[in-house]
Amino acid sequence: MPNHCAELFSNYFPFWNKLTDIQKEKLCNSITFVKYNKGQNVHGSSGECTGVIFLKTGIVRAYLLSEEGKEVTLYRLYTGDVCMLSAACAIQNITFDVFIDAEEDCEAYIIKSDAFSALMSESLEVENFALRITTMRFSEVIWAMQQILFMSFDKRLAVFLIDELAKSDGDIVKMTQEQIAKYVGSAREVVSRMLKYFAFEGIVEVSRGGVKVIDKKHLKEIAF
Amino acid sequence: MPNHCAELFSNYFPFWNKLTDIQKEKLCNSITFVKYNKGQNVHGSSGECTGVIFLKTGIVRAYLLSEEGKEVTLYRLYTGDVCMLSAACAIQNITFDVFIDAEEDCEAYIIKSDAFSALMSESLEVENFALRITTMRFSEVIWAMQQILFMSFDKRLAVFLIDELAKSDGDIVKMTQEQIAKYVGSAREVVSRMLKYFAFEGIVEVSRGGVKVIDKKHLKEIAF
Repeated sequence: MPNHCAELFSNYFPFWNKLTDIQKEKLCNSITFVKYNKGQNVHGSSGECTGVIFLKTGIVRAYLLSEEGKEVTLYRLYTGDVCMLSAACAIQNITFDVFIDAEEDCEAYIIKSDAFSALMSESLEVENFALRITTMRFSEVIWAMQQILFMSFDKRLAVFLIDELAKSDGDIVKMTQEQIAKYVGSAREVVSRMLKYFAFEGIVEVSRGGVKVIDKKHLKEIAF
Repeated sequence: MPNHCAELFSNYFPFWNKLTDIQKEKLCNSITFVKYNKGQNVHGSSGECTGVIFLKTGIVRAYLLSEEGKEVTLYRLYTGDVCMLSAACAIQNITFDVFIDAEEDCEAYIIKSDAFSALMSESLEVENFALRITTMRFSEVIWAMQQILFMSFDKRLAVFLIDELAKSDGDIVKMTQEQIAKYVGSAREVVSRMLKYFAFEGIVEVSRGGVKVIDKKHLKEIAF
């Protein structure tokens, strides 16, 4: 068993110490190291059960995709997060599929679904871990749902721009209106209209490269 | 310990046989029998943690409620179902609140949150049971989300009317347009407009008492 495997699991998977040596060995033999480029699909497009993803570095976005190609962002995962929904096949009560894309270049470890599934059936602790992570995502999805269904659109867009600025530490959100629309779960035309209004109010400047926030104070007033 | 308590738990709560006699006794002492009238709020409006609800008879509806009073239906529970989100305070990773109303007259058993919470911390079997139920609701919520966000409104309304007919075994959906709007997560005006269109197409007849479906075949074509 490679040392870095024991280190990874003992740091991030609380069930590690409850496993037998054989289980530890099996688990370590089932993980692979992968890299994803920014924008690459991590899970969903192949229709296969990718496995449990441990995100070593980077950011991924989980979303629903309609038959017509409409996307709704459910949540994002960051360095150190574990993704269970990419192993939905291993969890009995999960009957839906999400898509997951890399939003930055990512490094990750993947635990194969069948190995994880076998371990879950042997150990209540492993199942408990998987279900707890899933329940955490449930809370994030409800939050996203409340944003989409209850928040007026000016507020939603303002919150989105402020969140994006906080990540990049600058004053420009470098995204096309098409991309923004995908992330806030709306149509490009609706985003375009609202950005024009924000620009008219002197809150933002819209250019080809993205959206520059000029009056952050005003934007925050709309958001909160 | 009353006999009907052991019977209830051994039939519906798979962890029952893993409990000690003391735990069984405590659990049985913590349940109360309640009745709700059709339309009554079961959970949410008081802001308190009601507890785990076992629905003996009837139907309840779980929904999100916005500050402006907008409702979005998440799922329904029927006879024999267990509701965990009414004991959200007992589950660490649940950070949201739902509202639950009785849609029919209901009879239920309620397990007090603190008793259930204590049991969860003693037994992984109990905690995993709670989390499995929660994960099942997660799947139902994602389904509802897909209906609301992805389905065109004519399709959504058609699916709703067909579902309601299937429950009542007749050809009339006895609801006001206001009620239908709440259930499909839309505005009354939008429902009214679409029903007028359905009526114009000879699919339904709208009266004060509800919506009578005349051309079920056509309605199904819209729905599927």
